[in-house]
Amino acid sequence: MLKNAWYVAGWSEWLGDTPQRITLLGEAVALFRSADGAAAAISDICPHRFASLGRGRIVEDTLQCPYHGLRFDRNGRCAHNPHGDGAIPPGAQVRAYPLVERHHALWIWMGAPDAADPSAIPDYSLYDRSDIASSRDYLHVGASYELIIDNLLDLSHAAFLHPFLSTDGMAARSRCKFEQEDRVVHSYMWNDDEPITPLFSMVWDRPEPRGDMRSHIHWTAPSTLFLDVGVTGVGAPVEAGPWLPSLHCLTPETEHSAHYFWMVGRNRGQEDSTLGAAIHAGIKLAFETEDEPMIRQVAANMAGRDFWSMRPAILAGDGAAVRARRMLARLIRDEQQAALSQPSPASTVDLSNIEEHSIP
Amino acid sequence: MLKNAWYVAGWSEWLGDTPQRITLLGEAVALFRSADGAAAAISDICPHRFASLGRGRIVEDTLQCPYHGLRFDRNGRCAHNPHGDGAIPPGAQVRAYPLVERHHALWIWMGAPDAADPSAIPDYSLYDRSDIASSRDYLHVGASYELIIDNLLDLSHAAFLHPFLSTDGMAARSRCKFEQEDRVVHSYMWNDDEPITPLFSMVWDRPEPRGDMRSHIHWTAPSTLFLDVGVTGVGAPVEAGPWLPSLHCLTPETEHSAHYFWMVGRNRGQEDSTLGAAIHAGIKLAFETEDEPMIRQVAANMAGRDFWSMRPAILAGDGAAVRARRMLARLIRDEQQAALSQPSPASTVDLSNIEEHSIP
Amino acid sequence: MLKNAWYVAGWSEWLGDTPQRITLLGEAVALFRSADGAAAAISDICPHRFASLGRGRIVEDTLQCPYHGLRFDRNGRCAHNPHGDGAIPPGAQVRAYPLVERHHALWIWMGAPDAADPSAIPDYSLYDRSDIASSRDYLHVGASYELIIDNLLDLSHAAFLHPFLSTDGMAARSRCKFEQEDRVVHSYMWNDDEPITPLFSMVWDRPEPRGDMRSHIHWTAPSTLFLDVGVTGVGAPVEAGPWLPSLHCLTPETEHSAHYFWMVGRNRGQEDSTLGAAIHAGIKLAFETEDEPMIRQVAANMAGRDFWSMRPAILAGDGAAVRARRMLARLIRDEQQAALSQPSPASTVDLSNIEEHSIP
Repeated sequence: MLKNAWYVAGWSEWLGDTPQRITLLGEAVALFRSADGAAAAISDICPHRFASLGRGRIVEDTLQCPYHGLRFDRNGRCAHNPHGDGAIPPGAQVRAYPLVERHHALWIWMGAPDAADPSAIPDYSLYDRSDIASSRDYLHVGASYELIIDNLLDLSHAAFLHPFLSTDGMAARSRCKFEQEDRVVHSYMWNDDEPITPLFSMVWDRPEPRGDMRSHIHWTAPSTLFLDVGVTGVGAPVEAGPWLPSLHCLTPETEHSAHYFWMVGRNRGQEDSTLGAAIHAGIKLAFETEDEPMIRQVAANMAGRDFWSMRPAILAGDGAAVRARRMLARLIRDEQQAALSQPSPASTVDLSNIEEHSIP
Repeated sequence: MLKNAWYVAGWSEWLGDTPQRITLLGEAVALFRSADGAAAAISDICPHRFASLGRGRIVEDTLQCPYHGLRFDRNGRCAHNPHGDGAIPPGAQVRAYPLVERHHALWIWMGAPDAADPSAIPDYSLYDRSDIASSRDYLHVGASYELIIDNLLDLSHAAFLHPFLSTDGMAARSRCKFEQEDRVVHSYMWNDDEPITPLFSMVWDRPEPRGDMRSHIHWTAPSTLFLDVGVTGVGAPVEAGPWLPSLHCLTPETEHSAHYFWMVGRNRGQEDSTLGAAIHAGIKLAFETEDEPMIRQVAANMAGRDFWSMRPAILAGDGAAVRARRMLARLIRDEQQAALSQPSPASTVDLSNIEEHSIP
Repeated sequence: MLKNAWYVAGWSEWLGDTPQRITLLGEAVALFRSADGAAAAISDICPHRFASLGRGRIVEDTLQCPYHGLRFDRNGRCAHNPHGDGAIPPGAQVRAYPLVERHHALWIWMGAPDAADPSAIPDYSLYDRSDIASSRDYLHVGASYELIIDNLLDLSHAAFLHPFLSTDGMAARSRCKFEQEDRVVHSYMWNDDEPITPLFSMVWDRPEPRGDMRSHIHWTAPSTLFLDVGVTGVGAPVEAGPWLPSLHCLTPETEHSAHYFWMVGRNRGQEDSTLGAAIHAGIKLAFETEDEPMIRQVAANMAGRDFWSMRPAILAGDGAAVRARRMLARLIRDEQQAALSQPSPASTVDLSNIEEHSIP
């Protein structure tokens, strides 16, 4: 898994006064807001007796451990010890993670802190626009995030798995193109002069039953996908038609499970909460009852084997997913080689003799 | 586990228009009927993105993958690709398993296809006779199939575990004999001039409350057991009395779980569906609430240890089970040695360079 | 885990006519009472086909296997074989464990039987006194017993985890002292002239709202803890006030799970069953909904890692728990070294050739 990258740890609006605990890339992380409302992320595991700080509570600008009450600030430093003489014991320090709130999401940096550059977060400011309404959701997936990327980068599966998102025989009539850049793969798919899909018919505002549809996907390494999905009149400009842009942020939980944060926007009926809820529900149904069970079944069938070792047959629609898999493998390999070539940082506190010397 | 053998993969009447997925000897298998009604078995895992074909649907004579729509015929060949130019990609081939429908069962051959000889399926044609009514059922067992064979080959446990199938002190009054052939062990047990058991009393049609009962078991390697179980008047010919012959087909799912397909026939009240349901229910209750929990507990107590390494105490009734365990161990050893002495077949398609050359 | 030690296997009053099965230190044990009412403990796994004897039933002075009916006496000897000629087969013997009923508990010795000395069971005869009423309960904990010892030996966590057992800021006002002997650690904690906690207010019988409280803990290796917890008037003698002495007996189930048997007594309202139930419920709630989830979370956060390898920060209240961990580690090390230096006992029956010679 790529460490030096921005991942989504949650939706901003879901982190209130109650701290949270989430496992990201195998690491337990506590999320909280200090009294001034600023979000922070520190290691979840208290260095005293290993309780979960994310199950604790906020006291002023600190997160108080629910077991014995040590308090940690947003930098991971122990700021208060309620026991004995109140001295801060050696080793009472946890890791702090860079965290940025942007475009409704909490973006966390899981790699070396000094490499964290907020400008590397892709620009999804369209969701901040007043003419775009949006809603957010979450799904836990019992499979590697790479299988979810495969799923999203080849939308030809909609014709077989998602009746609500497709029409009969649609896959065979698609026109596709792939492009790639340094850390991005683009997959373009057009279906011109086609019957409107059930999903689009919810926002279709023209008399004729056909339109030009597009499903363009922009994957940014390691695991953020923007789906530029819309419809317009046959031959009409893209901007004139309904648009349902969706963002899919995948964060590995472990090697075999993932967090799936998704957000869908619309440029029609922005004030119509019933319409918003209906679009949201249609997409949620597809993800939770069609995609997720399929992806989980694929993971079970792979039984821990490496994807390429299973020598998959390759179809026309696989171009984007294969490019993304290769690009991601290369980025991970480069990062691991760079890590090997530099010494690991010394601990800030030498704890090696604690058993012998520090016990009261 | 023995590969070159016929196992039951399901009951014929349970495979209709909907394909099925079942794991046999650790391999995921898709079962389906093509449009002409013929049953087929192919590998469950689609070679494209590893979805389960057995969760797909029938299209004419093929099984269509539920994820991206590739279609496979009964020989495991990809017959249709709905994407791009429709060319069949290299590697779009799955394994096909020999399958024979006989005596209400689907018999599958898990070994080398050219060694599959349908005449090796034991003759259970009695269940095809018009004077024998029968019913079928299935039980998943969380234990090795060998522990179920142990259970069935020593029916003396009925006196302790199955009040419905036994009478007080019956085990101590049994007369037993064992015989063995090349791939068969016979266990004969007689209880002459005994009180009728509750099960037999359901079909007992004589005035006196005692009879000659028999429970003969014929195990055929690896895991098919025919129980010739009946009662007749004291000293009367066997043929004159009620007969409840049952067939027990065990198919390993994994090393630690098994499919248990069973069928019970009767030569009394063949048109009486209430009687049939009552006999069926009595047997089902014993298997599901008495045998299966016991066998699962034994497996838990063994905790993965080898049976012989636990140096079991041996009782009088163990003769058949011990013979079967030894015979099966010998057959498996012979098969594995034969496999080592011959080269493995070459792949039909060389996929070794697919990653480099075949990606669109 | 320490083998040569008395552990609690259950409460006396909970073992009636029905045998029980429990796993202790990774070993499956059957508990039963023979017809004369004497409790016994033998290995749970029948040496015939490995069924659980603890799921069997009592026949006179023996425990009858539920599968094929072998009967075992309190010494683990097979006393009856209902099959064939009834001869007791070689190897039909299971291990018997020394068991002592004392102070409401069943104390079992998991080590070498000849080292079992009942006088080594700590004296908790206070629970046999007529002026002390008591009640008992059980909790299964999904974590190592050592984490429960840590929990109990540092009651400063009550201020953060148990509102019912503490008052605001109480931890910071505690006075503590630790002492240790050969196999015992004492932890003394006083809170003088303090507001009465909610738990104590249930038995508080003086007009003033403050008192002198104490929470003294006496841990005896490996895992029995006596909590001498009481309150009295400010400056008044300890004996004059309400007393809620509780006993906490932890028995490892496996390395990662434990049985938690607890008992609470009182020297007030001994005849008042409503009061007894209310005290019991308040304590049970704290253990089951506050302590157990916390301890399980700590175990999950440790993820199988060794406690010291995680280099815990040490606080003022950790003195007792750290001493107990070290003492226990030393006792286990000594026991294992002693075991290595002496030859293992020969089997009473040589079963090594059983497969070849003993099968009927």
